[in-house]
Amino acid sequence: MLKLSKFPFKTQKFAPKVSDNKSTSILLQAWFIRQTMAWVYTYTTLWLRVLEKIKNIVREEMNNYWAFETLMPSLSPRELWDKTGRWGGIDVMFHVPAANDKEYWLNSTHEEIVTPLMWEFIKSYKDLPACVYQIQNKFRNEKRAKSWLLRWREFLMKDAYSFHADNEEFERYYEWMKQVYLNVFARLWLAKDTFIAKADWWTFTDKYSHEFQVKLPIWEDIIFLDPETWDCFNKEVAPSFVWTPNIADKELKQKQDIEAIWIIWVEALSKALWVPAEKSTKTMMFEVDGRFIVASVRWDYEINTLKLQKILWAKSIRLASQELVKEKTWAEIGYAWIINLPKNTELYLDDSIDWLTNFETGTNKTWYHSINVNFGRDLEIPERFYDFKEAKLWDKNPTTWNIFEVFKASEVWNIFPLETKFSSAFWLNFLDENNTLKIPLMWCYGIWVSRVMWVVAEYFLDEVWIAWPKNIAPATHYIIVMWDNLYKAILLAQEIEETWWEVIIDDREKIGFWQKASDSDLFWIQNRIVISDNTLELWWYEIRKRWETESKIISFAK
Amino acid sequence: MLKLSKFPFKTQKFAPKVSDNKSTSILLQAWFIRQTMAWVYTYTTLWLRVLEKIKNIVREEMNNYWAFETLMPSLSPRELWDKTGRWGGIDVMFHVPAANDKEYWLNSTHEEIVTPLMWEFIKSYKDLPACVYQIQNKFRNEKRAKSWLLRWREFLMKDAYSFHADNEEFERYYEWMKQVYLNVFARLWLAKDTFIAKADWWTFTDKYSHEFQVKLPIWEDIIFLDPETWDCFNKEVAPSFVWTPNIADKELKQKQDIEAIWIIWVEALSKALWVPAEKSTKTMMFEVDGRFIVASVRWDYEINTLKLQKILWAKSIRLASQELVKEKTWAEIGYAWIINLPKNTELYLDDSIDWLTNFETGTNKTWYHSINVNFGRDLEIPERFYDFKEAKLWDKNPTTWNIFEVFKASEVWNIFPLETKFSSAFWLNFLDENNTLKIPLMWCYGIWVSRVMWVVAEYFLDEVWIAWPKNIAPATHYIIVMWDNLYKAILLAQEIEETWWEVIIDDREKIGFWQKASDSDLFWIQNRIVISDNTLELWWYEIRKRWETESKIISFAK
Repeated sequence: MLKLSKFPFKTQKFAPKVSDNKSTSILLQAWFIRQTMAWVYTYTTLWLRVLEKIKNIVREEMNNYWAFETLMPSLSPRELWDKTGRWGGIDVMFHVPAANDKEYWLNSTHEEIVTPLMWEFIKSYKDLPACVYQIQNKFRNEKRAKSWLLRWREFLMKDAYSFHADNEEFERYYEWMKQVYLNVFARLWLAKDTFIAKADWWTFTDKYSHEFQVKLPIWEDIIFLDPETWDCFNKEVAPSFVWTPNIADKELKQKQDIEAIWIIWVEALSKALWVPAEKSTKTMMFEVDGRFIVASVRWDYEINTLKLQKILWAKSIRLASQELVKEKTWAEIGYAWIINLPKNTELYLDDSIDWLTNFETGTNKTWYHSINVNFGRDLEIPERFYDFKEAKLWDKNPTTWNIFEVFKASEVWNIFPLETKFSSAFWLNFLDENNTLKIPLMWCYGIWVSRVMWVVAEYFLDEVWIAWPKNIAPATHYIIVMWDNLYKAILLAQEIEETWWEVIIDDREKIGFWQKASDSDLFWIQNRIVISDNTLELWWYEIRKRWETESKIISFAK
Repeated sequence: MLKLSKFPFKTQKFAPKVSDNKSTSILLQAWFIRQTMAWVYTYTTLWLRVLEKIKNIVREEMNNYWAFETLMPSLSPRELWDKTGRWGGIDVMFHVPAANDKEYWLNSTHEEIVTPLMWEFIKSYKDLPACVYQIQNKFRNEKRAKSWLLRWREFLMKDAYSFHADNEEFERYYEWMKQVYLNVFARLWLAKDTFIAKADWWTFTDKYSHEFQVKLPIWEDIIFLDPETWDCFNKEVAPSFVWTPNIADKELKQKQDIEAIWIIWVEALSKALWVPAEKSTKTMMFEVDGRFIVASVRWDYEINTLKLQKILWAKSIRLASQELVKEKTWAEIGYAWIINLPKNTELYLDDSIDWLTNFETGTNKTWYHSINVNFGRDLEIPERFYDFKEAKLWDKNPTTWNIFEVFKASEVWNIFPLETKFSSAFWLNFLDENNTLKIPLMWCYGIWVSRVMWVVAEYFLDEVWIAWPKNIAPATHYIIVMWDNLYKAILLAQEIEETWWEVIIDDREKIGFWQKASDSDLFWIQNRIVISDNTLELWWYEIRKRWETESKIISFAK
């Protein structure tokens, strides 16, 4: 029972304008939050109630599937991070100088703390699988705002770490954990618009990892969904297939090398030569683990270096320098292209080029471009084409040939493999059935709890208010007390709170009915009860649910 | 319901030896905690359950008295601390360099965050009193261990801040808040040994502040308690009265100045001259806000500079330098004493000197000491004697003349005035009834939540185990399952958990009964139920409460 007459916070008459995000404006107007500094917030009472409810949903679902809660520290000593070689290697970590020349990190992730913690508990295959989690503040030394809602310096996260004897055991466990996440979604009423997207995370492994994405028009990630199979990909790793055989000419034209002085880039050239985008190519040169690579896509696509890197099984990929391009292709940048390359140059072609006839490309000769280039005649047909283009709207899923649905979404949780990176660094190992010493596999499961709060607020935003689902709203009942009927309101509130319901009593003095009614809308409390001399006849109260335009008089059994 | 077969943690056979603190050894043996680095801990599941219960008790009692929970950030920007001049002034704050040349503090206290937060909410006397609190991690850059249980780098604290129109209003509010604290004590079963001690805190005010101390033989604070009035003082500020008129000689002896070359300090002299400690004096010189002060106590006492500072209403106090002593008293240190001082020297005498006759003091002349000194004859009788000695065992309460009880205790919470230091720095003000702009008074109320956990563990330590009170124990029931009766155990656990009770099911395979029984003792779970083929006859189970040596067979109604 929360009595507003004692409450130290007040609503504002108008929503302050902050960025283009309406839910945040409402949260500020209803004093749920206050900004203490850029990307750092103070939560006031009602927002904290929402937070606690979301935390408890996560906690209950994790506990149900035998993940065990712990609480690791926010500070960690340099020695732990030196063991994995990550000290100084994570830009977003706050470095904290401490007394006695010690150095700490303010953790944004806890692998280096959880792995040695398990050292004394994981000895045998019988101890596996094991999973521990925590709901804890994380810190990130962010340089700039990507979006003020998404990148915080300080935020709450649920991070779980599981330990497994082998991949098969993990896969069974993963199905459990996916169910945990789906249960949490369902209890937050987000299930309908939640998608499990394949994504790439860090560089521990070549395997796909998963992100759980909530479809929301204002958020930052772009999702490609196969509407039939529900295969779902983050744009970063989305496969893509483009099928345009109708662009192929029946007749192969004569190849021409055209001098086009001062027209350096293909965009300008495409216009100058009247070659359509679909018949031009775009070529880039990379240095990949020391190898020199030439890669080309159709002109209207971009090269997705992450996809290219995976094709090449490469640890690192970067654009080749001007000098290296000249050394390897004998051409200036801008004219180094896919024909006339020196022999043994490694050439990778995207499948968007597969069907092209009479297309344009650079000539590998300064100022010269070639048009009406054709495979087989001017250029060797490669052994295979690859898919390393950045997926676009109207692209198809290469597996099903279905056209992708594309939408914006917010990543609220993710699951990714840590393989044995941390377990081997900390000498965590176990004896298997045959008494052989093995290193356990680790997986990591995150939920951005603070971001989930914001997603919920944004997701349930209607025209005017944030319509919280009742199990995560700050309260279930709002009692407006007019004149001196407080005593009766308290009696009623006590009765209501005998279940799991929670009551806010608006007993503010000298505040009129309409102000109280409008605040109850702003907080979005589902059930509204008015106790005034008018509505009060023994145990009768006015009850209204917000989406019903008419008030209802309902009797409370006494 | 927590199933130990899935649990990733294990008890240890023997308690590790850590410091001299038995409860910590048990907590480590039972894997409640693990040390991640010096003074920084990871809490595992069962300890976290205890913590959550203590937090909820604090939360419920605070909420009951209209203090409102918030959550402020851990990081704060330099600008806020520059406003109060505290940036760089708090040694124990971690300084965090951040991106874009920003500087943050990792907060160990939140006055600089809460005061501007209230700025938009406190406008009128009608908005007062107001109180907000949070339960939040605090960070302290500790240089060295005072005690490894008391000084942490990272710990949980409940800190509340209240805002008041005037002292009278505060005093009413304070009685409420004291009640909150007493309620929390009572629910933690500590009420019997909790004492509200007067203490000094920071330098905001000359007023006493209060500490809540739990009597515990191993902890650091020393408490002086009047056994009749229950007036209670931290040693730092304890008043003290010593009544030894029987030491006074009837006959005043001839004063003698004795040359005692190379015997510099009074300790040595006292022995050399056969003067008892009770007839010697100890004199020290201070620089107090620029004034030069000579202060003297009986030889067997120490000067309590905090008490002296309060007597002098001084902002700062420090020992006078050798040069200053020579300039002001014309004597070397060790001979500057209370007789033969230059005129107008400010001399303060402790009341332990009041009844002395024929006593010893320095002569204010190098190598010389005087014995048989007497007031009135050799030394002017001062207008009054003061009390600035450090209180000792057997001293009396000056108000009641009762001999103090003296014991060790742990400070678990405190209340202290912030006056208008922060409200004026942040221009927080309000209009009173007469429309006059005023600055609200602030008070601060702390509970060291993590320390309370440790105090509870230590307080309830018996010969062998930590006997948690059942409302804060990790669970209420422990079901030992032998052979394949797990299904029945789960049914029973579900039935038990329909109330607020919580069950741990020990279903570990290949672990014998005695190991399970001994772990249930180590965790200290009050009710133990054994389900085995022997005890199981339909719905009969063995139930045992730990303090009963005999097991009881009780039937569960089905």
